[in-house]
Amino acid sequence: MPAKDIYHYHVRKALERENWNITHDPLIIPAGKRKLYIDLGAELIAAERADEKIAVEIKSFAGLSDMSEFHDALGQFIVYKIALAEKEPERQLFLAIPQDVYEDFFDDPFIRKVISMNEVKLIIFDHQKEEIKAWIQ
Amino acid sequence: MPAKDIYHYHVRKALERENWNITHDPLIIPAGKRKLYIDLGAELIAAERADEKIAVEIKSFAGLSDMSEFHDALGQFIVYKIALAEKEPERQLFLAIPQDVYEDFFDDPFIRKVISMNEVKLIIFDHQKEEIKAWIQ
Repeated sequence: MPAKDIYHYHVRKALERENWNITHDPLIIPAGKRKLYIDLGAELIAAERADEKIAVEIKSFAGLSDMSEFHDALGQFIVYKIALAEKEPERQLFLAIPQDVYEDFFDDPFIRKVISMNEVKLIIFDHQKEEIKAWIQ
Repeated sequence: MPAKDIYHYHVRKALERENWNITHDPLIIPAGKRKLYIDLGAELIAAERADEKIAVEIKSFAGLSDMSEFHDALGQFIVYKIALAEKEPERQLFLAIPQDVYEDFFDDPFIRKVISMNEVKLIIFDHQKEEIKAWIQ
């Protein structure tokens, strides 16, 4: 099972502060043949508030290359979105990223275009304050 | 600059055996702000044959988790495709994968669905024989 992101618990806490009820951590999504299960969704948090249901993929972008992290985050987002659409179409998927990464790397017009074309919904968080700064749909 | 895939030269050789002329290795695609350039396309090979132009992303899937490699390969493919569409719309992008990975991991109906929904074109290669076994569009 993949390791949790370094900001996993910061984002979980930030969601709880906005009255989200964490229902699954990890959220395992059955998809494909059995051997895929263990890898798919292991890094997702599922939460509910009133009648809203979300799944949150967390990426700190703490690695050596923002572009490599972005490839990985985007690929995961797309795979999770297709798996969720099959199993839980009412659950909205978000990619949670740190505020400084959003203001720097995601500010690039090319990255914004890729995000927009792939309908990636973002949660921007401040890991130090354990707060959500913005929901971008 | 990211490291080349372990089968980079095997695929390059396989393309040459099918009379493709390698024109760029790496193929650098200008996209976004300057700082993105160095990372984008560094793992791509560009080739031409008659009036066909292709760019090839190579993934050996030699890492610990096929699913993690798949996230990364898919994210890269989508980013490269958007960048190529801006700069060289006539160049077709392919993801080159080993035959055993195609027959095992890519055989999963869920993976096939993701590939199809994202219009990922595949080159299947035999790294030992340095041969292309199939082009799947």
